Amino acid sequence: MFRHGDTIVAPATASGGALALIRISGPDALVLCDRCFRAKRGNRLAASEGYTAHFGTLNDPDGHFIDEVIVTVFRAPASYTGEETAEISCHGSRWIVSAILRTLIHHGARPAEAGEFTARAFLAGKLDLSQAEAVADLIASDNRAAHDMAATQLRGHYSDDLHALRAELLRLAALLELELDFSEEDVTFADRSELYRLLERIQQEIGRLTDSFALGNAIREGVAVAIVGEPNVGKSTLLNRLAGDDRAMVSDIAGTTRDTVEERITIGGIGFRFIDTAGIRQSDDPLEQMGIERTYRALDQARIVLFMADSHSSLSAEQAALLRRLTADPDRKVTLLLNKCDDPAQCPSPQLPTDITPAITLPLSAKYGYGIDRLTGWLTDCVDASAIFGGESVVSNVRHYDRLRHASETLTEARRALDDGLPTDLVAEEIRDVLRTIGEITGEITDNDILGEIFSKFCIGK
Amino acid sequence: MFRHGDTIVAPATASGGALALIRISGPDALVLCDRCFRAKRGNRLAASEGYTAHFGTLNDPDGHFIDEVIVTVFRAPASYTGEETAEISCHGSRWIVSAILRTLIHHGARPAEAGEFTARAFLAGKLDLSQAEAVADLIASDNRAAHDMAATQLRGHYSDDLHALRAELLRLAALLELELDFSEEDVTFADRSELYRLLERIQQEIGRLTDSFALGNAIREGVAVAIVGEPNVGKSTLLNRLAGDDRAMVSDIAGTTRDTVEERITIGGIGFRFIDTAGIRQSDDPLEQMGIERTYRALDQARIVLFMADSHSSLSAEQAALLRRLTADPDRKVTLLLNKCDDPAQCPSPQLPTDITPAITLPLSAKYGYGIDRLTGWLTDCVDASAIFGGESVVSNVRHYDRLRHASETLTEARRALDDGLPTDLVAEEIRDVLRTIGEITGEITDNDILGEIFSKFCIGK
Repeated sequence: MFRHGDTIVAPATASGGALALIRISGPDALVLCDRCFRAKRGNRLAASEGYTAHFGTLNDPDGHFIDEVIVTVFRAPASYTGEETAEISCHGSRWIVSAILRTLIHHGARPAEAGEFTARAFLAGKLDLSQAEAVADLIASDNRAAHDMAATQLRGHYSDDLHALRAELLRLAALLELELDFSEEDVTFADRSELYRLLERIQQEIGRLTDSFALGNAIREGVAVAIVGEPNVGKSTLLNRLAGDDRAMVSDIAGTTRDTVEERITIGGIGFRFIDTAGIRQSDDPLEQMGIERTYRALDQARIVLFMADSHSSLSAEQAALLRRLTADPDRKVTLLLNKCDDPAQCPSPQLPTDITPAITLPLSAKYGYGIDRLTGWLTDCVDASAIFGGESVVSNVRHYDRLRHASETLTEARRALDDGLPTDLVAEEIRDVLRTIGEITGEITDNDILGEIFSKFCIGK
Repeated sequence: MFRHGDTIVAPATASGGALALIRISGPDALVLCDRCFRAKRGNRLAASEGYTAHFGTLNDPDGHFIDEVIVTVFRAPASYTGEETAEISCHGSRWIVSAILRTLIHHGARPAEAGEFTARAFLAGKLDLSQAEAVADLIASDNRAAHDMAATQLRGHYSDDLHALRAELLRLAALLELELDFSEEDVTFADRSELYRLLERIQQEIGRLTDSFALGNAIREGVAVAIVGEPNVGKSTLLNRLAGDDRAMVSDIAGTTRDTVEERITIGGIGFRFIDTAGIRQSDDPLEQMGIERTYRALDQARIVLFMADSHSSLSAEQAALLRRLTADPDRKVTLLLNKCDDPAQCPSPQLPTDITPAITLPLSAKYGYGIDRLTGWLTDCVDASAIFGGESVVSNVRHYDRLRHASETLTEARRALDDGLPTDLVAEEIRDVLRTIGEITGEITDNDILGEIFSKFCIGK
């Protein structure tokens, strides 16, 4: 996957700021810097202690001045990668950054691949694989829930949970292996009912983790919320009210929102993806019909639906049918928003057929803001990210989910094998499979192709 | 302009990278960080030495984990601003950066205005005003010439030149002031012919600086080069060849390049702005006519013109007339490019009327690259940035140019006053004006409005 033992360099910040950071790591990191950096105090970086910063000038290979910089020195193994490392803080000019990179490459550094610094941190044992993956999630996080989820994973809480499961299983697996070593003698070291109960308990724990994936994935991708309702009922106005700006187009012409518009809005620290669907109505316009089809597709995906109606009119038969269909699915949370309740004192409340039961019914004025607080409260309650805010481990990574699901299925097989009194070597094989699968998550069991794929998704400089 | 004495904070890097830097400066910078940062080694930042880096966790005011960060400590006065300063290196998530900023602001820091860190460096005497302005130019520089020009200014060479001029003038001004103090006694301390020669010499030196502004400004803005010629002669192909990519649209339909397209290309370390003009030809299409008008305007501005013709045909009467007009201006450098010379061995060379004298005539194949090296060599010779690459002071700042021009005019007035034998107080007043004007460039004489305007053009965090 990655070459080892050489010295890699890459910019660690985006271009366009006042300052920029360049990171160089590897056995020759400090020696290479000393070839182009002159500290004002005259000291050499390679002779400096870790966690010290040095002001001076950086020159190109011809001795031409590039910039005044501050170089921070990290000595192996007390650095992010575990290797000798320097971080160069220079002025944020694209030209300066590329001149410094060219200079360090001239002196022998190699441009780092995406994720190569973190890959080295993993290979040096500074982070396990799930922590390394959390680094990329942390950098990408743009709301509190996504941040907290990645931070919990980065700090190793999730890894600790998995290690604990694996350690218990290892103990019993060792006993089974012992039985196999003495197989001619037909001894039993592992108590079968204890083993069975342990497998059950581990499967329960894994079940808790896989169950958390629905939440974790929604937080990671943004919680999908479909906004539906007849044309001109105020869907775009609500979206603008929630977003606090005028990103969505609003007008008084019925059917304005022709296409599906997705808007990312953070409410209560949770990232939501509001899908403003095309107004559902009969139409001969093929473009508008396409929009209507997209609406139905968005509805199928969204677990949360804001169904908007006009508080001043009754639901049409068509609307009532759609609302009935939506509320019939117990996995879907539907709120009926009675919009245009611009004067809360005299807000009419249309009668609903008794077989339609939305989760809640809220009078609302998208235009003036009445009822918005109750709506946002309901939305954050629907998601219930308290586990995440409380620092519990939640699975958000598809790769981990896939491995945990596989482990759970294998545990079912192992329990069945025990139930059926199958030979010890078959049971042991299933348990070895579970151990391997869990080990793949934290990286105790690694595969170069998988590592390559994981780190290639990182940004350069991390 | 700016408030003093408080503690300011701002992000110093653009968002979107692996890492981000946040800078905090002011008397409480380290104390504020200590309220939210816990060093792994347990030490307090406010008790740490300057130029040391500290790894630890940063928590929000409620004690929730935000990120693992490295804080570099700079103690007053050995910092960029001359104040107590910390630089926080965190993961490059937009959410993390804003959470850290919110936390520091909660603890008492104030969000910094654009340029406020550099303004503090100026007010602390760390940089003079022209050096402070060079910081912004350095950050904006995207080619070697622009970089070297800003770097020379940042390192104070330009300020030194101005200080030397001002010191000589101050010496003579002091003698004149002495005469004014003894004005009843009609004594002469300042030798009038020595004074005259000095004013002349200073004016010459200032003249050298103002003359350099044409080069400095072109380097700063990008050197304008107009590409003209008949439709389909290969202007866009040449531009693509020079840029090394396919940014400009190229096609075989005559008149494809309808609008004026500006392309910034760095050649030999110099930033050029190539203006690919609309094909000049008779046309009834009003849009195309507008393009043709723009061509003429671009021609008027550009001191360098690439006039492209087809090496296989003679110049039309219209082309000859345009080329004659262009080459008649001695301040304009025109090269005649005979394009489509795809086989250099048999490249025809059309006869030119004897009254048309382009700077050079180059056979060229934009398509295959023949002659491109000679063209780029000619272009860099046209600009002659050797003074800049050699580290000479060049004026690139309109404000400096304006002040130097004013100083030169005042020197002319002063010399005229000496010629005419006007009273000493009038001469002294002119010289005081020159001293003030030069002092405004380096900031010895400052005006809050001017400072505010200069620093407001900086980016946040610098």
